[in-house]
Parts: sequence; C-alpha cells; structure tokens
Amino acid sequence: MKKIMNSASTYVDDVLAGLVLAHPRLALGGSANRVVHRAGGARKGKVGITSGGGSGHLPLFTGYVGQGMLDSCSIGNVFEGPNVESCIDAIKIADGGAGVLRLYGNYGGDRMNFDMAGEFLEGEIETTTVLGTDDVASASPDEGKKRRGVAGIIYAYKIAGAKAEEGADLSAVTATAAKAVAATKTIGLALSPCQVPGSAKPTFEIAADEFELGMGIHGEPGLWRSKLKPADEIVDDMLSRLLEERPAGHGGRVSVLVNSLGATPLEELLIMYRRVAAKLRETGIDIVQPLVGHYATSMEMAGASISLCFLDEELEHLLSAPSGSPFWEVK
Amino acid sequence: MKKIMNSASTYVDDVLAGLVLAHPRLALGGSANRVVHRAGGARKGKVGITSGGGSGHLPLFTGYVGQGMLDSCSIGNVFEGPNVESCIDAIKIADGGAGVLRLYGNYGGDRMNFDMAGEFLEGEIETTTVLGTDDVASASPDEGKKRRGVAGIIYAYKIAGAKAEEGADLSAVTATAAKAVAATKTIGLALSPCQVPGSAKPTFEIAADEFELGMGIHGEPGLWRSKLKPADEIVDDMLSRLLEERPAGHGGRVSVLVNSLGATPLEELLIMYRRVAAKLRETGIDIVQPLVGHYATSMEMAGASISLCFLDEELEHLLSAPSGSPFWEVK
Repeated sequence: MKKIMNSASTYVDDVLAGLVLAHPRLALGGSANRVVHRAGGARKGKVGITSGGGSGHLPLFTGYVGQGMLDSCSIGNVFEGPNVESCIDAIKIADGGAGVLRLYGNYGGDRMNFDMAGEFLEGEIETTTVLGTDDVASASPDEGKKRRGVAGIIYAYKIAGAKAEEGADLSAVTATAAKAVAATKTIGLALSPCQVPGSAKPTFEIAADEFELGMGIHGEPGLWRSKLKPADEIVDDMLSRLLEERPAGHGGRVSVLVNSLGATPLEELLIMYRRVAAKLRETGIDIVQPLVGHYATSMEMAGASISLCFLDEELEHLLSAPSGSPFWEVK
Repeated sequence: MKKIMNSASTYVDDVLAGLVLAHPRLALGGSANRVVHRAGGARKGKVGITSGGGSGHLPLFTGYVGQGMLDSCSIGNVFEGPNVESCIDAIKIADGGAGVLRLYGNYGGDRMNFDMAGEFLEGEIETTTVLGTDDVASASPDEGKKRRGVAGIIYAYKIAGAKAEEGADLSAVTATAAKAVAATKTIGLALSPCQVPGSAKPTFEIAADEFELGMGIHGEPGLWRSKLKPADEIVDDMLSRLLEERPAGHGGRVSVLVNSLGATPLEELLIMYRRVAAKLRETGIDIVQPLVGHYATSMEMAGASISLCFLDEELEHLLSAPSGSPFWEVK
C-alpha cells in the first residue's frame, strides 16, 4: 500500500508536527515530543484527563485534546503504545493540582506503561484509571473487562471531559468516565487491511469479495467472515448485537457514531446511517447528536464501525456541553 | 473494490437519505429528490447560490449547503452531472427573489444542463454563472478557462456565500465568486483509483509503486507519472506549481487546503501540511484558516490535493465570516 511519507522512521513525528501546525490550539511536548496537549497547559484546580495509544488512528487519540475533552495525550509509533516516559510526561502536563484520570483503550502494552507511569508519580500526582472496553466483538458480555477499546472511547472523552470542566473532583470524573464507557457499545466490520509504514506486508489478508464482522482495528480476529452482503443486512446484524447490550430500563435516547476505518467513504457511512436511523426509530429509540465520519481510523483500512452510546439525563447533558477539540467541537 | 451498499442503482438515493437524516439542517427536495437544500428554504431578498455535480465526491457538493454558503445543490449519479430538471429545481429552491448564482465546476455535462436550466427559467428568475477552474494541471495558465474545477471550489462557496449573506446584489455576489475562483489554485496527485458502483473496473490503472501528478478526480490524465518519492519532494513540486500562479502584487496571506481524495489518511495529509507550512513560511507567506481533511473526494481513491487561496482583505474578511454548513462551519 502506498504512503505519502518521507520515511517510515519519521512518519509519526512528521504527522505530529503537521497536527500542531494545522491546529494552533494544540501543542507538542514531553521529553521525546510525543505528548500532544492543550496549548494553554493544564487549568489550575481542574481534574486533568490524559489518554494515549499507538499512532495510525487519527483523529484518535490526539485530535480530541481540547477544552472540555482531553488535557493531554501520549502517543507511540504506529500501532505501538506510548512509552512509559511519554505517559509520565502526559500525566504531569495534564495535572492542574486536582489529580489526573488516565482514560485509554484496553490493550496490554498501553496498560502496562500507563500503570508504571502512575506508580512512578505516586505521592506526587493522584491518578485513577478507566479503560475503554466498547468493542462487543472482542469478548462476551460476562467477560466485559476483557473487551478492547475502539471508536466508542470518544464518548468517554467527551462526557468525562465535560464533567471535569464543570469542576467535579477526581473520583466523580472517574465515575462518570466509567459510566460513559459502560454505556457505549461498538461493533466494526473490515473490508481491507492497512499497512504499517516500513512493514513489508498488510496487517491481514482478506479475499476480494469478503468482509469480516467484528475484526479489531489492528486486524485482531473478528466473529465471522462472509461474502459481501447488502448494507442493510450487515447493519441489521451489527445493530442487533449492540441492542442486545442495551441497559435494563434504558430510557430510549442514544447517540450514534458511524465511523470509517479509513478508506470507506462518507457515502457508504451515510448508507449505513440511513438504516441505523430507520431501525432505531422502529425500536422506539431517539437519536441525539449523531456523528458520521472519520473519528477513529486505521490509516487506509477499509471498513466501518457503529457505536451506540445509551444516554441517561446526565450523560446527555454532558454530551451536549461545549467542547473545543479540533475533531469534535460543540458550541 | 468493495462497497458497503445495497445496490448500485440505490447507491446515490441511499446516501442522500442518510445525509439529511444525519444533518437535520439539510433537506431533500426537487421532483426527483435530487436537490439538497437548507431546511428552512430560501431567505427572502437574499441572492441565492446553487451548485451541483456528480455524486461520489462527498462532502462535495451537498455538504456545503447551509447558512453563509450554498442554498441548494442538485446532484447526479456517481460521476454524472445532475439532470436539467434537478438543476431547474435547485435554482427555484435557491431563489429568494434576488436572483441566483450558479456556481459549479467546469465540466461539459454540468455546463450544458445548468445552461439549459437557466434558459428554461429566463424571465422568471435572473441567473448568473461562475465556473470553478482551480485545477492548474488541467490546462495551461493562458487557457485558464479550460481548467477543471476540483477541491478549491469550496473557497468560492464560502466567500460568495458570505457576500450573499451580507446582502450584496446578484452582480456583486457573482463578481466576488469569480474573484474567489481566480484567487484559488489546486493541484492533485493520485495513488490509486476508485470504482463507480456497478462498474466492473476501477477508474484507471496504476502500478503498485507509482503515483501521478495532476490527475483529475475522475481519473483524467495528469502531468506525469513516476515512482513514489519522499513526501517533501512531492509537496515542493506541487507548491512551486501553485506559487507560479501567485497574483502579481499579492499581499502574502493565503488559506491552504490539504485534501484527501478518499483513502489517503489524515496522517499523510498532515505530513504534507507540515511541509507546506514550512515552505510558505520560507517564502514569507502567512497561512490563514488552514483546512486539512476530507473536503472533496472520489470515494475510496487514494491521493491528495493542495489548494492555495490567495487572499486580499475582502476575501479574508469573507472567508472568516460565520457559516453553518455541516462540513465547513465557522462561528
């Protein structure tokens, strides 16, 4: 697969340099220049929220740094978690004296490094952890804590970010982030792989007329593979798996995210969204603040994911609060 | 190439249905439901602006309907211009009694149908025409009127839209649109083709290690084909071609659009933008309101374009005026 790049070894640093040039509200810091943070720095007295992960998923994760969302984000090489040093830097940069929530996707390497960073800062900065676990295809409901984090984590960024902006303390922001994660379910489908810069091969192989339901964003195995089907049929299957996880007594308002993994165009996301909207209406569910576009990608991978965030009054209020990140702005 | 769709024959109508469901400020109208317009309808006394073109380029063209931009947009099948009837409908819907500017890309089929629509409405609605001709690779500077319109047309939408919103009359809005088109230059590069739904073959063929400079968004031949080169080298070539067209006496402020043709990820647009910003700084040019993302695509085609809009005081003022289209919002 063709890349517009200077070299595999400069890919990530060139991307980050471009990101902060294009978005002056973001700045680059940390000892290895692998932390993106709000240009103004931490806000004194506000709970900080930091995230992080591998590169190759823009606008995830760094594109959600901004007012009412993340304060900082540590970033690794493509599909590799940030190193401990960058996690430490990101926590320090996010700290405004009221503690820092580490809010990131449930992947082993990320977890190890964020945990070590928290231990390193023990006694200096109070930290808590919430892991994104929205991918319903990655483990069964009774093993929910084993699930991977994918596109739906942006709901937790938005909702916890708004809570912190309101002046809540660390334990309340942490509880709200956990509530947002628990309320958000995602399922993806893959059509074609991507290729890590410098790697000789694509991330996986798939026949020219096949798709895979539930495949992870790095090519982790999904639920099943099949010949391509009509979009409505695919969406119905995806939706029914998400609706199975609707919380008991849920009030009937959701936010929907239909997300491209990269090469799948907006046209096809809208074909999917049309069906999602029709089916949810049939089910008596109202859609609030839908998002359709490129929110969490794997470079040039073709495919898409659907996320539902099952709202209650508090979550809906926080979802609609102002936010000023470059890729999710609410005014 | 794999599509998430129900069938080739329903592709466009499914997309449009999804578009207006996801963006309630847009509505679908016209006798064949192929006109996207502002949900509130035309504003009495304001000059209307209509555009149109083939499907397959989202967010172009329909995604730029909204306050301070387009009033309506007629849309054809994938890579086919809107039919005369839809052009007539779109002009009528855009008409608030002060005349309607037809502002669209310079392609033969579109021109014929928009011209016939204007003639049909003669005596009823006053119309004028400005054609997008920003693609510098499609004809030499002395044949500027033969150039095709590509991504840069969104600057004309934004600038003429703001002028109309200020209450200017049809001739002033038309002159401003023409000025914005003249001030905007684009060059593209293609890495891989896309495929029209229902078609057996991709739009063109290109070797696995090649790219083509200046190729059009439907696969129209470009300037030259070569083995892939480092991004900075490619950007330098593209920029020097754009800067050759810098108007004499230009004051040194530009807006820059780095646009993905579809599959090329945000990462690689930012690698390009980093170089654009560095080179323009060297040249003593200041960047205003940069845009980096998916603004005018060809479905899953890989490639990118760079547009420069050479600003003067009036253009910069209109560029920063409020606008409320789903894919270019200024507050």
